[in-house]
Amino acid sequence: MSQEPESPAPPAELRLRIRVTRGEDIAIGPGKIALLEAIREHGSITLAARQIGMSYRRAWMLLDEVNRSLRRPATTSAQGGQRGGGSVLTAEGETVVRLYREIERQAEQACAAQITALLAMVGDPE
Amino acid sequence: MSQEPESPAPPAELRLRIRVTRGEDIAIGPGKIALLEAIREHGSITLAARQIGMSYRRAWMLLDEVNRSLRRPATTSAQGGQRGGGSVLTAEGETVVRLYREIERQAEQACAAQITALLAMVGDPE
Repeated sequence: MSQEPESPAPPAELRLRIRVTRGEDIAIGPGKIALLEAIREHGSITLAARQIGMSYRRAWMLLDEVNRSLRRPATTSAQGGQRGGGSVLTAEGETVVRLYREIERQAEQACAAQITALLAMVGDPE
Repeated sequence: MSQEPESPAPPAELRLRIRVTRGEDIAIGPGKIALLEAIREHGSITLAARQIGMSYRRAWMLLDEVNRSLRRPATTSAQGGQRGGGSVLTAEGETVVRLYREIERQAEQACAAQITALLAMVGDPE
């Protein structure tokens, strides 16, 4: 009676990961999109990095990769005011985030039937 | 004139990767689907592993993970005949491969407009 009950196996989940590559470079991926969203929320690379649990240096490098891989940068420095030194998304940055999240959402909706069927095949033996 | 011309930057590509997870375990992913397809083609884990450029041991382990994560196994041993000792897909294995590839294809079709827009934002500065 003192034995721990076995915890039930967690349910199967489908994860859809989208990357935009150019040759060897990953221009856009899930980590970079999460970083852009955190910058949009906090107006600061420092605070965005802290929220994601990433070093400032790593966040800065990812952002630099995104900005160099796009025709126009996704972020810009906010000048002056209380947020002097902060970072904000450009119109292009907003569009990149929106398109990425739309692709994720729409892909899952479009394939809902197949996703349900596939997930139903994963689990303990019948 | 002896200088090598710079090769033009390759075009941006979108990669969509689908995984089915259960807790910490990856039940189904791109490598496992490629392995199942190679087994379907060759009727043998050895030949499938060779085609993919994977060790037999690694292929066997991936296959074991797939088969244990599904309610019914995706492969079975082919008995007797010239293929004695080979492996073939079960009906469930065929279905897993079909659903996985359908999700990939249908997701890209459903999001074609957003994918085109996103890819157009990646490239050299205007």
